[in-house]
Amino acid sequence: MASQNQASRINRQTWHFAQDVRLQASAVAVGPKEGEGPLAAFFDKIHDDMYAGQQTWEDAERQLLEDAISALLQKAKITGQDVDVILAGDLLNQNITTNFTAEKLAIPLLGMYGACSTSMLTLANAAALVNAGYANKAIAACSSHNATAERQYRYPTEYGGQKPPSAQWTVTGAGAGLIGIGGNGPRITYATMGKVVDMGIKDPFDMGSAMAPAAVSTFLAHFQDTGRTPESYDLIVTGDLASVGYPIAKELLLQEGYDMDPVYNDCGLMIFSPDQDVFAGGSGCASSAVVTYGYILDQLNRGVLKKVLVCATGALLSPVSYQQGNSIPCIAHAVALEGGI
Amino acid sequence: MASQNQASRINRQTWHFAQDVRLQASAVAVGPKEGEGPLAAFFDKIHDDMYAGQQTWEDAERQLLEDAISALLQKAKITGQDVDVILAGDLLNQNITTNFTAEKLAIPLLGMYGACSTSMLTLANAAALVNAGYANKAIAACSSHNATAERQYRYPTEYGGQKPPSAQWTVTGAGAGLIGIGGNGPRITYATMGKVVDMGIKDPFDMGSAMAPAAVSTFLAHFQDTGRTPESYDLIVTGDLASVGYPIAKELLLQEGYDMDPVYNDCGLMIFSPDQDVFAGGSGCASSAVVTYGYILDQLNRGVLKKVLVCATGALLSPVSYQQGNSIPCIAHAVALEGGI
Repeated sequence: MASQNQASRINRQTWHFAQDVRLQASAVAVGPKEGEGPLAAFFDKIHDDMYAGQQTWEDAERQLLEDAISALLQKAKITGQDVDVILAGDLLNQNITTNFTAEKLAIPLLGMYGACSTSMLTLANAAALVNAGYANKAIAACSSHNATAERQYRYPTEYGGQKPPSAQWTVTGAGAGLIGIGGNGPRITYATMGKVVDMGIKDPFDMGSAMAPAAVSTFLAHFQDTGRTPESYDLIVTGDLASVGYPIAKELLLQEGYDMDPVYNDCGLMIFSPDQDVFAGGSGCASSAVVTYGYILDQLNRGVLKKVLVCATGALLSPVSYQQGNSIPCIAHAVALEGGI
Repeated sequence: MASQNQASRINRQTWHFAQDVRLQASAVAVGPKEGEGPLAAFFDKIHDDMYAGQQTWEDAERQLLEDAISALLQKAKITGQDVDVILAGDLLNQNITTNFTAEKLAIPLLGMYGACSTSMLTLANAAALVNAGYANKAIAACSSHNATAERQYRYPTEYGGQKPPSAQWTVTGAGAGLIGIGGNGPRITYATMGKVVDMGIKDPFDMGSAMAPAAVSTFLAHFQDTGRTPESYDLIVTGDLASVGYPIAKELLLQEGYDMDPVYNDCGLMIFSPDQDVFAGGSGCASSAVVTYGYILDQLNRGVLKKVLVCATGALLSPVSYQQGNSIPCIAHAVALEGGI
């Protein structure tokens, strides 16, 4: 077993999943703005108001995560008790959305936090646990909500503060994936775990610029560890670099000899259409989660896409660290999805 | 490999580490009050003021975590670049202490959050990654700081609000462990991952009562999954149930047929002496971290202890969820340590 064990770590940053680990099913719940966007057809549940039938925005975010997990279980024709573990996180302090949702599911919870990279952080670690046999079935999930994020990270929404065009719009939504051995769905083949990168940017209204170098760091590690190139994939996405960070990442990678142009897009640009008034584009862990668990999985299962690399980007700032004058540490985690049903 | 893979999951909640996974080294940094307590001799670095030479309490907490990791690397005679991954978390919003510390270490970060259970959440997952070959060496680490936690979770310390005797004192400290295959140190044999348990308790000044049922849930899963009993260990500790939660957990386990009395203690009771004016006792992820990575590892390596089960307990509340009238979801994760140098 030793040599096979070693094989699962092909380099310091990249894990290889030698077993037939698959993203067997996924589901997505979103808010009204996302439901008016170009990917609406790929979402399982669209709420027509930001409260999702609840009394508070925080409860609404929980409702979204519960909706995504309920839809996931229904699509996979299993119950929560068929799942061994949930790996999840969200943007709210103390991962509170996750904690309350996991209580209802009544299975072991591994709480994770990587800001908006949490989508791929949880998917990568769920795949690792399933590949190694610690779980037969695992759920990876995350959520974000525009109004809860605004209240927590920036200003009370009632304040109506103006924002520069480099600001982003936190996606209201939740996504969940079911990871297991065999069955249907694309294989999860590689995961590249990111390092924290901090280039000294301090402006929380320009997270794209802050996060782009973290995405580049993870892409470079992925390409070097696996011997792959951008041409190895027919789609590569970042999570939420949006219109400011996306060209920066592309330019930095070109300088490193990787031409991303033919295959590269960003979930924060895909989730909304240009006329939806979202500043530079979408953000939040739901940005990459709903695009991956909604659109990308569908396209893989239909054979429209064959090999996709999802690199979820996270700005690890806190309001306190920002107020204390600190820069914004960032991170990105990438997962490769291949084939389909 | 399939059968061995399956063997690593002996039941839904418990993982077995069949490889020779060891806690090869550990280190601890603490604040002044902890340095005056009964376990001071087991701590690597004791700061004589709460600022730890920094300008803010938040920076002081980062200093503690950096001190613990620096001391760990020094004791293990390695550099950060010899380590493949760090699994870490803390109590501050957005895991901010962890994020800044991981940036300096410049290795991949898996951010985790389980409130005060983060100590064993990170140790369990680090052992799982090493056992399965995803990492040759991993660091598990966490921190808490009394003043940063008070400011964030309760009242500004300047307010001087009175507290009931059931309140606890957040431990100022950080602990880090190095996990690898072979070498010195106790084996990490089992990890039991907890479910979220919420018995409806809403009082953030009585977290011991809220967390006790979560500890009981994880202990029961551990005993049932492994066939072990309290007699299998010569020390079992919870992380921070303190003087209110500790007897509740003991009584609930007795009702289930498990007499914990001969071997059971609580890190929140061990870290301070009764005359140190800490209400019901210590809390915070540093409570279990500094006791485990300081005292318990030392006793295992000296042969004074042979088999220890550490069950770290976490209250997953947020100030917002508390203010919105929600109850306190809790969780506990347990790790078994056996033998020593």
